[in-house]
Amino acid sequence: MERKIDLNCDMGESFGAYTFGEDEALMKSITSANIACGAHAGDPNIMAYTVKLAKENGVSIGAHPGFPDLSGFGRRMIDFSPEEIYQMVVYQIGALHAFCRAHNVRMNHVKPHGAMYNLAAKNREVANAIAKAIADFDQELILFGLAGSYLLDEGEQAGLSVASEVFADRTYQDDGSLTPRNMEGALIETTQQAVEQVKQMLTEGVVTSIQGKHIPIKADTICVHGDGPSAVTFVKELNVSLQEEGITTASIKATE
Amino acid sequence: MERKIDLNCDMGESFGAYTFGEDEALMKSITSANIACGAHAGDPNIMAYTVKLAKENGVSIGAHPGFPDLSGFGRRMIDFSPEEIYQMVVYQIGALHAFCRAHNVRMNHVKPHGAMYNLAAKNREVANAIAKAIADFDQELILFGLAGSYLLDEGEQAGLSVASEVFADRTYQDDGSLTPRNMEGALIETTQQAVEQVKQMLTEGVVTSIQGKHIPIKADTICVHGDGPSAVTFVKELNVSLQEEGITTASIKATE
Amino acid sequence: MERKIDLNCDMGESFGAYTFGEDEALMKSITSANIACGAHAGDPNIMAYTVKLAKENGVSIGAHPGFPDLSGFGRRMIDFSPEEIYQMVVYQIGALHAFCRAHNVRMNHVKPHGAMYNLAAKNREVANAIAKAIADFDQELILFGLAGSYLLDEGEQAGLSVASEVFADRTYQDDGSLTPRNMEGALIETTQQAVEQVKQMLTEGVVTSIQGKHIPIKADTICVHGDGPSAVTFVKELNVSLQEEGITTASIKATE
Amino acid sequence: MERKIDLNCDMGESFGAYTFGEDEALMKSITSANIACGAHAGDPNIMAYTVKLAKENGVSIGAHPGFPDLSGFGRRMIDFSPEEIYQMVVYQIGALHAFCRAHNVRMNHVKPHGAMYNLAAKNREVANAIAKAIADFDQELILFGLAGSYLLDEGEQAGLSVASEVFADRTYQDDGSLTPRNMEGALIETTQQAVEQVKQMLTEGVVTSIQGKHIPIKADTICVHGDGPSAVTFVKELNVSLQEEGITTASIKATE
Repeated sequence: MERKIDLNCDMGESFGAYTFGEDEALMKSITSANIACGAHAGDPNIMAYTVKLAKENGVSIGAHPGFPDLSGFGRRMIDFSPEEIYQMVVYQIGALHAFCRAHNVRMNHVKPHGAMYNLAAKNREVANAIAKAIADFDQELILFGLAGSYLLDEGEQAGLSVASEVFADRTYQDDGSLTPRNMEGALIETTQQAVEQVKQMLTEGVVTSIQGKHIPIKADTICVHGDGPSAVTFVKELNVSLQEEGITTASIKATE
Repeated sequence: MERKIDLNCDMGESFGAYTFGEDEALMKSITSANIACGAHAGDPNIMAYTVKLAKENGVSIGAHPGFPDLSGFGRRMIDFSPEEIYQMVVYQIGALHAFCRAHNVRMNHVKPHGAMYNLAAKNREVANAIAKAIADFDQELILFGLAGSYLLDEGEQAGLSVASEVFADRTYQDDGSLTPRNMEGALIETTQQAVEQVKQMLTEGVVTSIQGKHIPIKADTICVHGDGPSAVTFVKELNVSLQEEGITTASIKATE
Repeated sequence: MERKIDLNCDMGESFGAYTFGEDEALMKSITSANIACGAHAGDPNIMAYTVKLAKENGVSIGAHPGFPDLSGFGRRMIDFSPEEIYQMVVYQIGALHAFCRAHNVRMNHVKPHGAMYNLAAKNREVANAIAKAIADFDQELILFGLAGSYLLDEGEQAGLSVASEVFADRTYQDDGSLTPRNMEGALIETTQQAVEQVKQMLTEGVVTSIQGKHIPIKADTICVHGDGPSAVTFVKELNVSLQEEGITTASIKATE
Repeated sequence: MERKIDLNCDMGESFGAYTFGEDEALMKSITSANIACGAHAGDPNIMAYTVKLAKENGVSIGAHPGFPDLSGFGRRMIDFSPEEIYQMVVYQIGALHAFCRAHNVRMNHVKPHGAMYNLAAKNREVANAIAKAIADFDQELILFGLAGSYLLDEGEQAGLSVASEVFADRTYQDDGSLTPRNMEGALIETTQQAVEQVKQMLTEGVVTSIQGKHIPIKADTICVHGDGPSAVTFVKELNVSLQEEGITTASIKATE
């Protein structure tokens, strides 16, 4: 039985004079940082700063490409073709990679953001475009995608290592999808419950759906949120509680 | 005596639905393409297309970073700090490098654009920031800069190979600077005169200033312009005429 | 029987150093200019220039709001809420209105652009948001919308004068919609046929669908295209031919 | 003797998902809101919200045009021509005016932002361009500018009412300019001192420079800052203290 999990968090999502998230504090509790690439958020100064911050904290670095839509924070669906998405992913991971190279640190993974992530979960062509863009750039990168999504499928087809992402603070439906945020019971409110859910995923390979069913799920990495009033506290507690349960947090390496 | 010269041209400066320049035609007559990186011009789709086009034509590829100012086409002076310029250069060369990697072709050089190029010629701190950004990303890249500029100095200090850029269709002043465009006699109007000027630079290592003096100048690469009604014809004729004079056009390699 | 029609064309869609369309030539043959407002295309300098150009040519001026998506030229579907579309329309018509005021000329109409126009044709909530934004800004503005669209309906509900837009160079389906561009027979190739179609619309109030049926249609204004190799010639010929048929081209006034 | 002063504050400088400043709280203590127009900050949704917020609080509304430089928050010097600045001011005040019209509230004043404000203080051509843009749009608007600046001069020349802006929490030099922020003593630390300075300006028409001289100064409006940890508290206290001194805070009306 696997008793190891990665904790990933979106980072570097400030822009110019605008700050976003609690990067300095969170960097102490996570194992993988998904760093925005200047499209949905971030800019060259912030990317450089965040790469340095991750390196100093021993946190694995990943590119976090998103739709080029700063005013919508990359959360808005935009009708890009798979070909356009391929090119924007190449562009963005190349940009982040340059900061890693300048700071002499490895770029370890890629996790798409917001609308791009959601689209890649259920649109096979888009999933394929993203996986191919990553593989064409660097076959050694690990692709992070929603558990059970097309993105993980296509990543594997493209010869990439993939990491199946789960949520500690969200409930699941019978079909393995996340309970939509606007439905009752979507959010898990206590750290204790969140840890229980992660433990179940790791030790039994299932999650109990909100309807009560045991749903098979693979948990390689947990998505934690960097904004919101209690983000820092939650991540800190989650980290501590997991370790009390004998679950180590550690970033995923492509060679494993 | 050196009888070889590089012909470089700015490329990939279209954006979305907007087209700029005659890239397809010009790519047949040049040896180095400076490809815009999505800041002053260009976008991921156009970058991918232009890298492919250069590769197909056997043209060496360089990054053409500029100020992030699409509405001013990177020609407007903006008060960025050297540190900010360092970061934007890292970002942009990384983005172009990714397309080279996806197309399995080498990125050979870097030439700054417009206001960034002009500033780097005469501001040593900015020149240093640009040279350092390039060297920190890849020590093998060749830095293109204005003949006699701080940029070439700082490039060499940073351990980079540099290429001294001259103009075939512009006249020079006694101090080695270009005659400003708004002054009479700034432009060389005939291909014959342009070829004569290049020949003199290559065979004698000097240029005759507009005032009549012989000014020492190093000519590694000639800048040709990609827009304007007669750009394609001029570059074609220049290329043919140089070869008739026994001057080979060839891109510059870092290892030479 | 009405023997008068407006010819409208999108104008001012250049941006910075990028030029688009043949505005100077076209302005001589049209009666209404839809001027881009700096979101999908255009910038303050171009808006000022285009307002001046329209005024000098006696062409009626309209705002041409679009999605804020320069790289997609406003043609890409983006998932904006009706509320967001309301605000972007207020913003953009206000910006164009300011140039009209500075040039002491009336802003006469509003025609949404690209994806916003298409969405407003078939999505009633969006149509309502646009109509309301216009009416809240100035009840006297005329709303241009696709013949038979929700946008015209909602414009009338909001108390606006509306103009039903038809195409001279596109064929129609039995349901009154335009034949999609990717289908055979979508485009009308000769000016003669285009004039016949307009004449039929004006004199009989119908258009013959590509399948051969007579479909009722209201024609207040004809959309002509400003880009493409033969745009200027076509508009010129269309204008002349209409007048030979006794059909006057004239802009629409709110007070009629 | 005048015992009335306006308190103005920059407002509506959030953007998309990024929040900036404490607008809701500050709006209760100020009399004029300078609302960003979507160039250096702000977007259509935020402009609409901020206009509504000002109206509800009985705060006078002004446009706050800035350089179109979101990543630099309009604080970076950019080499725009006076003509370009004219057009961007027309554009931006038109956009804000549209929201005022949609909310049925008057746009009362214009105050340029950041680098545009500083440039207009000491560059007469730019000052003239801004004043002319405002006057060409609406002769009734009040122009806010730095006490003693070219902007106020040019505003008066253009026939506008002007408001001379002073700072409560900054010290002055012998030449009437603000002590640069990087110099010792630039900031006034206590509310009491700030109120004393304002009182002196209003009752005696002078300010005591940091070197100890009495410098004539006209104080129509005080600039207060909306960001920083103690902004809300300072403005609240300033407001209360001024009233205790018998100084009324009230917005400036063009007709006075």
